[in-house]
Amino acid sequence: MPNRLQKKYLAMCMKGKLFSNQMISKVKAFCQEEGLLGQNDNIIIGLSSGADSVCLLCVLLELVPKEQLLAVHINHSIRETAERDQEFARKLCQDKGVAFKAVKVDAITYAKERGMSTEEAGRLLRYQAFEEVGKEHFHGSDFKVAIAHNMDDNAETVLLNLFRGTGIKGISGIRSSRDNIIRPLLCIKRTEIEAYLSSIGQDYCNDETNFSDDYTRNKIRHHILPLAKEEINPRAVERVFELSNQAESLYDFIEEETAKAASDIAKVEAEHAVIKLEHWGNYHDYIKRSVVLDILSRVAGSRKDITTAHIESVINLVDLQVGREVSLPYSMVAKRVYEGIKVVREAAGEYIASGLDEELVLKEGKNSFEGSIISMEVESNIINNNEIPVKNYTKWVDYDRISNSLVVRHRRRGDYITINDEGRTKKLKSYFVDEKIPSEVRDKVLLIADGSHIVWIIGYRLGSYYKVTERTNKILKLVFKGE
Amino acid sequence: MPNRLQKKYLAMCMKGKLFSNQMISKVKAFCQEEGLLGQNDNIIIGLSSGADSVCLLCVLLELVPKEQLLAVHINHSIRETAERDQEFARKLCQDKGVAFKAVKVDAITYAKERGMSTEEAGRLLRYQAFEEVGKEHFHGSDFKVAIAHNMDDNAETVLLNLFRGTGIKGISGIRSSRDNIIRPLLCIKRTEIEAYLSSIGQDYCNDETNFSDDYTRNKIRHHILPLAKEEINPRAVERVFELSNQAESLYDFIEEETAKAASDIAKVEAEHAVIKLEHWGNYHDYIKRSVVLDILSRVAGSRKDITTAHIESVINLVDLQVGREVSLPYSMVAKRVYEGIKVVREAAGEYIASGLDEELVLKEGKNSFEGSIISMEVESNIINNNEIPVKNYTKWVDYDRISNSLVVRHRRRGDYITINDEGRTKKLKSYFVDEKIPSEVRDKVLLIADGSHIVWIIGYRLGSYYKVTERTNKILKLVFKGE
Repeated sequence: MPNRLQKKYLAMCMKGKLFSNQMISKVKAFCQEEGLLGQNDNIIIGLSSGADSVCLLCVLLELVPKEQLLAVHINHSIRETAERDQEFARKLCQDKGVAFKAVKVDAITYAKERGMSTEEAGRLLRYQAFEEVGKEHFHGSDFKVAIAHNMDDNAETVLLNLFRGTGIKGISGIRSSRDNIIRPLLCIKRTEIEAYLSSIGQDYCNDETNFSDDYTRNKIRHHILPLAKEEINPRAVERVFELSNQAESLYDFIEEETAKAASDIAKVEAEHAVIKLEHWGNYHDYIKRSVVLDILSRVAGSRKDITTAHIESVINLVDLQVGREVSLPYSMVAKRVYEGIKVVREAAGEYIASGLDEELVLKEGKNSFEGSIISMEVESNIINNNEIPVKNYTKWVDYDRISNSLVVRHRRRGDYITINDEGRTKKLKSYFVDEKIPSEVRDKVLLIADGSHIVWIIGYRLGSYYKVTERTNKILKLVFKGE
Repeated sequence: MPNRLQKKYLAMCMKGKLFSNQMISKVKAFCQEEGLLGQNDNIIIGLSSGADSVCLLCVLLELVPKEQLLAVHINHSIRETAERDQEFARKLCQDKGVAFKAVKVDAITYAKERGMSTEEAGRLLRYQAFEEVGKEHFHGSDFKVAIAHNMDDNAETVLLNLFRGTGIKGISGIRSSRDNIIRPLLCIKRTEIEAYLSSIGQDYCNDETNFSDDYTRNKIRHHILPLAKEEINPRAVERVFELSNQAESLYDFIEEETAKAASDIAKVEAEHAVIKLEHWGNYHDYIKRSVVLDILSRVAGSRKDITTAHIESVINLVDLQVGREVSLPYSMVAKRVYEGIKVVREAAGEYIASGLDEELVLKEGKNSFEGSIISMEVESNIINNNEIPVKNYTKWVDYDRISNSLVVRHRRRGDYITINDEGRTKKLKSYFVDEKIPSEVRDKVLLIADGSHIVWIIGYRLGSYYKVTERTNKILKLVFKGE
């Protein structure tokens, strides 16, 4: 018969076993609900040696046959403890009988070379490594990549998005799956992970984070979330997770409704779109705005930096008279036309940059500089605005509107450009900011200027003030030919 | 000519004037956008004498003719500074020439008498006072009540909701208007309010908060939000406000879609509803869940405590066979029937409570105790379950299923009740918790028990195990008559 101490020990083991079983059931149920694990799925486990990924390995060993698992350790060669972590991972997999592979990546150099953040580079390199190693190990068969994000990570992401500015998508937090990436531990809290590892007597390495974004994330992890848990609700992390799940389903619904509405009321082609107003009134304001965002994003080729203010300005056009227009990021212009609102991406060229030292006064005929040529010719025929061919490097302007000698030069303090037919002007600097021109390029962009008033951002847009109209008498043709 | 110091002073005044104009334009634009102020609206200003409400008074004086304004100070008689604040408000209104009224309320006594929180009582009394004072002052004409909530208050509410658990509605934060309540300063940050008051040289009293909920709110105000602003994004409060606006519009859209879908697929009557499955498949999962929540809320008469798990259990019934059912809060049962899902609120009675000391063994015939009578009669006719009339104080049970002598008593450790036709049981305690029976009542509820197995919670539901079925041979009729 076991003595008292033995009994206590057995009871502790039983408790650990129960806890461990609970954890496994919970992850199993979550994977089933979210469809994360198929019966024959090959799985790569991203194994950093931190608590989360060690837990992921242990739990997946209970749910997936060993032969279908491969643990991959990414060595970022940044931390002092990198070798220790790699050795820990190797040893752990050896003990558990799981296939193991370590990959060294250099996120810092990669980031420098490509002008991205170390964090972004690290993420990119990790997923590239998983893909390469996976293809080789599983002989070209499909595989999934299991990442150890947990419920606390989700709450941190939601708060980060919330404070930085987000929509319903950001509230959805971390997804349980995307492409071939799965996150089986998303339903588990950090404290549960630690308790589980301790209940099964499993060690792990301490995760020291290195990436830039982790500074703000750590503020949330170490200060904001603990306050929320201690002072407001001990189950705050679970509550945020529930909201995320609801928001995910809601986002999905909104996407569907927006796509349906967009196909009903809009016609989108490459670089332009028309929103017809026939069925416009059938839709709720929220869906109207969502459709406008969708259309602007498709015409722009990106959703980034399209703000509520831009969407409102397009919506406002509905009640304005035909001909009114607004300028938008990515050189887009939205115009009220008879049948609705037309969104056009103007001049999808690229900014022509050079190292031109001083300004060059342009004269009629050919003007050469630094291997480039700008020619200025007076056109004899009056042509209709709409018939002007769109060529990036040729522009026609209203000669009578030019007050000074035209010059080609780089930007100067005080430069401005007219951005619509109503004569609205914008500081060139604001224009560059709105158009997302990288600041290092701004000083090199070639401009044709009439004093401080910009006529043409070469290779890009013409100032609206100088556009040829029906009242134009004298047309000037400007042609740029680069080296 | 003004000297240097005079110039500096004039410049300062100009700056103050500009700032003050900006503030007024901002509030004006917000009120226009949100339709808060009509031209002839009478307005009550809730004037606590704190910065927010003093700012509200000053700004509204610029936007609304004086004669249409009435400032009301609610004296909660709790703070030591209550008299000082009231005197400040009176003096301010005298100086500005605005009609003023102070009202004393006693939230603590009111709360005690009604078993509510002091905060809830305070809110109730404030709005009651506004209504009464407004009716009198404006001679029965309509009026609005302007409250000084600001953009920081909104962010606090969103975070409070987020950590406590919320849906998209909670993310919408504080509404700019509801019924006759308007919040013109919701577009203004707390720092802007303080800067504005300083720019116009306007004093105010420090707000010392007294209500229970303010403890948690203050944690967010003084700790979490400052961290978010300093460490994550200085414009965090604005970003949360933008999200709230988006969520508000989204919530509105979802409500409309849910109402449309509910009227398409469900038939709701008092205390029961049927969800038909004919068009069920046409709807997105999110809308299905939203419809189920809507229907359960309408049958229950309250949305509170209906959780995602309850909604899921109802949704799951769709794929189960006819006859399967689940128990829900508020004594609701959802059952898979041929045409879809039927939701019924069982026994909408009330718990009969008494101070019965000991258990009383029931015998056939009349049993009297404490002025009440329970009669037990054997029914001669076998009646069909569906024909049993629904009377709160009369129940028919299957006599053969009773193993012990029936007793009437209060609850005891180990009591349980069968809650569905498949024989699922629940601890009585859990049942009381799920049904939101206040804990102080639980010990006094009268029960008819068969050992630990509860036959009837008197005035309320019958244990499913004892229900009369087609196989019942002997029916026992139980009738309770109270004093």
